[in-house]
Amino acid sequence: MYVLMDIMVSPSGVGISVSPYVAMCQKIFEQAGLTHTMHGFGTNVEGEWDDVMAAVKRCHHELHQNGAVRITSHIKLGTRTDRSQTMADKVTSVQGKLNPS
Amino acid sequence: MYVLMDIMVSPSGVGISVSPYVAMCQKIFEQAGLTHTMHGFGTNVEGEWDDVMAAVKRCHHELHQNGAVRITSHIKLGTRTDRSQTMADKVTSVQGKLNPS
Amino acid sequence: MYVLMDIMVSPSGVGISVSPYVAMCQKIFEQAGLTHTMHGFGTNVEGEWDDVMAAVKRCHHELHQNGAVRITSHIKLGTRTDRSQTMADKVTSVQGKLNPS
Amino acid sequence: MYVLMDIMVSPSGVGISVSPYVAMCQKIFEQAGLTHTMHGFGTNVEGEWDDVMAAVKRCHHELHQNGAVRITSHIKLGTRTDRSQTMADKVTSVQGKLNPS
Repeated sequence: MYVLMDIMVSPSGVGISVSPYVAMCQKIFEQAGLTHTMHGFGTNVEGEWDDVMAAVKRCHHELHQNGAVRITSHIKLGTRTDRSQTMADKVTSVQGKLNPS
Repeated sequence: MYVLMDIMVSPSGVGISVSPYVAMCQKIFEQAGLTHTMHGFGTNVEGEWDDVMAAVKRCHHELHQNGAVRITSHIKLGTRTDRSQTMADKVTSVQGKLNPS
Repeated sequence: MYVLMDIMVSPSGVGISVSPYVAMCQKIFEQAGLTHTMHGFGTNVEGEWDDVMAAVKRCHHELHQNGAVRITSHIKLGTRTDRSQTMADKVTSVQGKLNPS
Repeated sequence: MYVLMDIMVSPSGVGISVSPYVAMCQKIFEQAGLTHTMHGFGTNVEGEWDDVMAAVKRCHHELHQNGAVRITSHIKLGTRTDRSQTMADKVTSVQGKLNPS
């Protein structure tokens, strides 16, 4: 089962700046070989369900080991059976409605 | 790793009423032996990380098999290392601030 | 336009325990006369769109004034035009599928 | 109060493809003069609180008028008082941790 995910990880107890922790998760997605793109409120990640979920778990583990006492992740998971679709396809589909050629 | 989760499952291609599909997931959480409480915009579920995640995956699988062409789940995941905490503890903590005895 | 909302408010820069801040928002919803129910990962609130949104804004304002340097709110907004529906209706609808009488 | 928002709008009762409806909201953000960037699971929008919220309301209104019987929006709202920050600043901050110069 292929899944498109959006994830925003919020560590607590590490001060106001959370960017070093967000960067740790980026590296985990990278090392896992998952397609990923960061935006202002999270990261789009896509891949096989088990691979994506293993990366999320590793992200929580690693942030805890690096001092995050409390972590809340906000995740969106999209699966579909009618056809294959990448994250890029979704954006292109909307853009096609905005700028029909 | 113990996790507190909130999940809202949104199937597409099944018409306006999604309550039969939400009920399917409720049964899966129940059969998995996970503590769960439904509210107006999702369900609080808690348990060991792998058990909770297996239930989420089974929920997507089962809804697809029952006709949901497209599923989007919105999930919150909370883990902490400083102390153990249940979902009920969280609610009680806020209520204590509202009605100090 | 009537709206069903779920809101989870996360203040940063105030330490690990955020329950006093969650309690402040509860009081704002109460004072605004909005139907509201807390759960483990947020609060269900319902009412007229403008009243609900004014309460959300007031919540951010008040938490900032009480020391929250940074606030992130996660919100779900549900509107529908086919029929009126309360938050309680939604829960009852799923329960009816779980325990058909 | 300046706000960074992420919004994902999900209309129901309009079939599987929701991209025409997502495009409608994009146009509303554009016409409102708000900085906005689409990603695979939503759109980052930023501006003054009241302007951003007025656009969200208009988005729900317009989609209902165009046949969406039921709409659920998933929104993240970020405000801070310590310093001004744009959506682009947030991404740059993480990238700086990933690729220190």
